[in-house]
Amino acid sequence: MQTQYYLELLGTGFFAISGALAANDKAQPDWFGASFIGFITAIGGGSLRDIILGSHPLVWISDINFVYAIIAGVILASIFFKALIKLRRTFFLFDTLGIAMFTIVGAEKAMSLNVNPVIAAIMGMFSAVMGGVIRDVLTNEIPIIFKKEVYATACLAGAAIYLTLDYLGLERNTNFLLSALIIIIIRIIAVKKNLSLPKFTKSE
Amino acid sequence: MQTQYYLELLGTGFFAISGALAANDKAQPDWFGASFIGFITAIGGGSLRDIILGSHPLVWISDINFVYAIIAGVILASIFFKALIKLRRTFFLFDTLGIAMFTIVGAEKAMSLNVNPVIAAIMGMFSAVMGGVIRDVLTNEIPIIFKKEVYATACLAGAAIYLTLDYLGLERNTNFLLSALIIIIIRIIAVKKNLSLPKFTKSE
Amino acid sequence: MQTQYYLELLGTGFFAISGALAANDKAQPDWFGASFIGFITAIGGGSLRDIILGSHPLVWISDINFVYAIIAGVILASIFFKALIKLRRTFFLFDTLGIAMFTIVGAEKAMSLNVNPVIAAIMGMFSAVMGGVIRDVLTNEIPIIFKKEVYATACLAGAAIYLTLDYLGLERNTNFLLSALIIIIIRIIAVKKNLSLPKFTKSE
Repeated sequence: MQTQYYLELLGTGFFAISGALAANDKAQPDWFGASFIGFITAIGGGSLRDIILGSHPLVWISDINFVYAIIAGVILASIFFKALIKLRRTFFLFDTLGIAMFTIVGAEKAMSLNVNPVIAAIMGMFSAVMGGVIRDVLTNEIPIIFKKEVYATACLAGAAIYLTLDYLGLERNTNFLLSALIIIIIRIIAVKKNLSLPKFTKSE
Repeated sequence: MQTQYYLELLGTGFFAISGALAANDKAQPDWFGASFIGFITAIGGGSLRDIILGSHPLVWISDINFVYAIIAGVILASIFFKALIKLRRTFFLFDTLGIAMFTIVGAEKAMSLNVNPVIAAIMGMFSAVMGGVIRDVLTNEIPIIFKKEVYATACLAGAAIYLTLDYLGLERNTNFLLSALIIIIIRIIAVKKNLSLPKFTKSE
Repeated sequence: MQTQYYLELLGTGFFAISGALAANDKAQPDWFGASFIGFITAIGGGSLRDIILGSHPLVWISDINFVYAIIAGVILASIFFKALIKLRRTFFLFDTLGIAMFTIVGAEKAMSLNVNPVIAAIMGMFSAVMGGVIRDVLTNEIPIIFKKEVYATACLAGAAIYLTLDYLGLERNTNFLLSALIIIIIRIIAVKKNLSLPKFTKSE
């Protein structure tokens, strides 16, 4: 679990970087604005999950290290901005790792609060994607998950697989790695092959 | 109360349908996006009410049937999309029924938590309209309730009437039907006669 | 503390006025819409703080006077609309006073819930600025704090100073006035000199 804790901190920092970079693309904020949006992107999904589930204190309120990880992420994003833009491909990989991890961690957290597994799968997906949704709303964009990228669907599928395998008795760490890997593979294939879900209606 | 429970499930499904259809009009989302927005529209108002009031667990967290009603609504919206578009008039009626019901149920829920009746009226209105507000924000529109349709005002009026009559001792089910009917009538008249509230300032 | 209570009511009313006026500038809402946005602007920051911290009941739920202050603010904004527009300079001063007060009150509230001082500073800033952020999102604008005006940064700085001086043992009321004054001075200087924070990246 010690390893997982550091991975979560790392993932939170990565989310802050990607939030600050995405915000910068769209709204050209000042230093404060970029940090603020990086912060919200990083804590938004997990916070919304915990607020919906009534689970207090929120993770970053009870453990200040998550706030420090975010601050570090925002500072790194500012200093290494040009390098990070060039490294988008590498960055995409880390982002995908982070999303996969947060999905499973989120679903697990929800299960520990004794909710229905369907709710837990939704909460896992929320943990991973709602930070980005809030970021897009704040920068006045239609959230990207509504249109492109299969990744929210991948999260939902990964969470459902994790919960099913857990129910069937698979050992937790194996299950964690396996389910996260499925999310990662779906997302990478979807982006490589430019796959997308069908439009909601054919008439459009 | 058994009847009311089924009506609430039905109303939730209707909200999901109208959310998915409205989202489709505006943002042409993929299947996931439309479902997501349908989901948020259906649970948004009641969830926000309960989060503000600190009342956990949220209704759809403790009773999975509400989630199933939403999933059913989204699937129906996708399959019968063209028919539903043609049936907008019928649909408007169901939507109005749902809004009236959720207003009264929301005000009642707030009262059961011992808040001031003014707060309860606001919470009743929130229950009915905030799902739509969140939907509009997510699809990057200025929420329609700020500009057109008298319906949020109708909800507020209906909730106030319900709470007043309840205070005066009117039997609950009679009061429920009467107050809901007032909301429905105000909304229908407002739409038929194209009534609207005055602009906030005359100088505009 | 009695004085502070009345100041908080007054500040809430001012926030409602400025919310209604700003909403009117941007979205030309009807009477209901302007009131709704004034309401959300006034209660948004403090409510978000309390929801994040899991502190229930929210201030305006437990004390109806805050709702009355908001209603009074909205009515005044409507009646004296033209005068208020002309008085923007005076109004800016009151707005700044309100922001400074809410920052310190918010940081204090967070500290009383035993959070890390870094979190308390963030919560102080949230209390003052998030109402405006929600207002801007609802009226489909990129929140102004991401781009212009140093005031969110001023709030963060003022909250940090308050918490530091409190830690060092400065008497509470003196500290309150001093820290609030610092926020006010930073904001006024920033606006007068048209200061702004550097952009997040130089390449833009």
